[in-house]
Amino acid sequence: MEVIKVLHMNGGVGETSYANNSSVQLEMISMTRPILEEAITGLYLSILPWPSTLAIADLGCSSGSTAFFAVSEVIRAVENLSGKMGHNEPPEYQCYLNDLPGNDFNALFRALPKMQEEARCFFTGVPGSFYGRLFPCKSLHFVHSSLALNWLSQVPRMIECNKGNIYMASSSPKSVMDAYYQQFQNNFSVFLKCRAMELVPGGCMVLTFLGRRSEDRSSSECCSIWELLAMALNEMVSEGLIEKEKMDAFNIPQYSPSPSEVKAEVFKEGSFFINHLEVSSEVNWSGNNKKLNGHRSSSNGKDGEGYHVARCIRSGTEPILISHFGEAIMEDVFHRYGMLIEDRMAKEKTVFVAVTVSLTRRPA
Amino acid sequence: MEVIKVLHMNGGVGETSYANNSSVQLEMISMTRPILEEAITGLYLSILPWPSTLAIADLGCSSGSTAFFAVSEVIRAVENLSGKMGHNEPPEYQCYLNDLPGNDFNALFRALPKMQEEARCFFTGVPGSFYGRLFPCKSLHFVHSSLALNWLSQVPRMIECNKGNIYMASSSPKSVMDAYYQQFQNNFSVFLKCRAMELVPGGCMVLTFLGRRSEDRSSSECCSIWELLAMALNEMVSEGLIEKEKMDAFNIPQYSPSPSEVKAEVFKEGSFFINHLEVSSEVNWSGNNKKLNGHRSSSNGKDGEGYHVARCIRSGTEPILISHFGEAIMEDVFHRYGMLIEDRMAKEKTVFVAVTVSLTRRPA
Repeated sequence: MEVIKVLHMNGGVGETSYANNSSVQLEMISMTRPILEEAITGLYLSILPWPSTLAIADLGCSSGSTAFFAVSEVIRAVENLSGKMGHNEPPEYQCYLNDLPGNDFNALFRALPKMQEEARCFFTGVPGSFYGRLFPCKSLHFVHSSLALNWLSQVPRMIECNKGNIYMASSSPKSVMDAYYQQFQNNFSVFLKCRAMELVPGGCMVLTFLGRRSEDRSSSECCSIWELLAMALNEMVSEGLIEKEKMDAFNIPQYSPSPSEVKAEVFKEGSFFINHLEVSSEVNWSGNNKKLNGHRSSSNGKDGEGYHVARCIRSGTEPILISHFGEAIMEDVFHRYGMLIEDRMAKEKTVFVAVTVSLTRRPA
Repeated sequence: MEVIKVLHMNGGVGETSYANNSSVQLEMISMTRPILEEAITGLYLSILPWPSTLAIADLGCSSGSTAFFAVSEVIRAVENLSGKMGHNEPPEYQCYLNDLPGNDFNALFRALPKMQEEARCFFTGVPGSFYGRLFPCKSLHFVHSSLALNWLSQVPRMIECNKGNIYMASSSPKSVMDAYYQQFQNNFSVFLKCRAMELVPGGCMVLTFLGRRSEDRSSSECCSIWELLAMALNEMVSEGLIEKEKMDAFNIPQYSPSPSEVKAEVFKEGSFFINHLEVSSEVNWSGNNKKLNGHRSSSNGKDGEGYHVARCIRSGTEPILISHFGEAIMEDVFHRYGMLIEDRMAKEKTVFVAVTVSLTRRPA
């Protein structure tokens, strides 16, 4: 099976899709692959032998060329294990590709890999929010989701203004920090409840969040990327290009949890064992860990890496920015944002932190 | 569950989708509903009790507002039967909506009925040709397809020119008639083989074809609608608007079988019992059986029923006409076609004949 070299990176949102693709380094693949392989081995041991059909779901798959990555990785792991175990007949695969109804499923379906015949893979598209039921009871063996669960179902309800911030920041009021955390807790516990109903006992999930190592919710490792977008927007407020009230009412519906926050929700919900929970990788904002950090790689204006990062974030966040601020100012916003990112990347180590958890459905 | 009052009527094709919707009378619903109900009872008796999840597929569902009709009819029949049998807990439903990858699944998904929660229905889209495998082995309980199986996988290979015709006609050479029939036989037998693998033993199919009563393949009951399109195109050849060679090379990839032709393929393939096979309905071209036949209903030019019928056929056939003749002449083609249909409807009884077969998968 063709190795797909790029991964989901940043997410889409709410009304369109959970995740839009962008290139991320092979580092991230090689860091999460062992966890996936271990999970597949665990799945096999808990349900052996393989059923005639293995039902796999990728939640928040998006529609780009990397949308098949997760599923192909899972299938590769199953086929490798089947080979090692000496099974002549590996299972057929029912592959469910999920995203919100606003996702471009037409593009997804027209890009389907031509492997149905020989690889015994049957692809279907599942439109809907993963913060609700998507599948019948006990119909799934394996669930994967990568960098989509960061997207909250809605902007947290806040009783105070976020003071020029659009995400959690060191200057955010405590009530804002709490509102974000509560929204994450509510969403993730509903997610776990739904998947607990849909997975067979012994079924597995490997979930990767954009997260943080620190217990400080306003830690720069998860907040910098939004702090810079807030800076771009605030510049435009000060120049009279955006109304202050508009800016005050805007917040990003994302949450980047720490490993212990993920663990707490899994324990509270109670349907899953944790096999593995770790910071699985750190990937440079540019998606290229080979480049030196804190080193200005390019000063070619719009060709610079900062602009590339801004474009990646844009593909995921533009729909909510447009619905709040209107389309006219988008070029300006992302030009300023690109410059700010470029500048920050030249000065600091700027990485995305991935937190991965591998879970097994307890017997009912 | 909301009763959906319109049905699939004419089909899309090849590169886009199998079926495009148009309004057809409630007559057709009430004529096929008893067969569906009988099939659901038969399914229940052969697999009882209901499994926790019933897997239903509609093949060639298209993307219009009527795309959910078949599935909702099947679910209604199951719920009615469950009520009669005193089951407190009817099953959950895994509903697979299939059409070619060129179908507008985005429109389909955005129009999904809001009934997932209470009705325990989980919808997925399945892109691909039903003349090939679409689902894992033994994964389906019920398959429905309405007016989609008329579309052949390709234009039959012909060794002679079809002499100004674009479908089977009384003036078609015998080799053309044979080529059409062979293509139908090949396609339908592959369809049956694939579904035989995918259905559980005891699983059922209800398939409705646009067909004919007569054993004469050039009978007007199935050929008139294409004969009139050929007339419109030939007019344009004689006026120099279409090259004669273009016209000679164009044929419609459709086949309207008789009940005995359907039966012959089912017997030959051997995996299915026939529960029921009949001409299930005759519906006026206008979709309104209450209007008198042979009576000019309207002479309002483009508002006439003939133009309405032409528009319905257009939605299904335009992609293949455009790919062969180019887009520029389409308005002209369908204006002439509408006039010819209008004229024919005023003079003759003009009906579509539906042939329905209900099948049960034999035990392996």
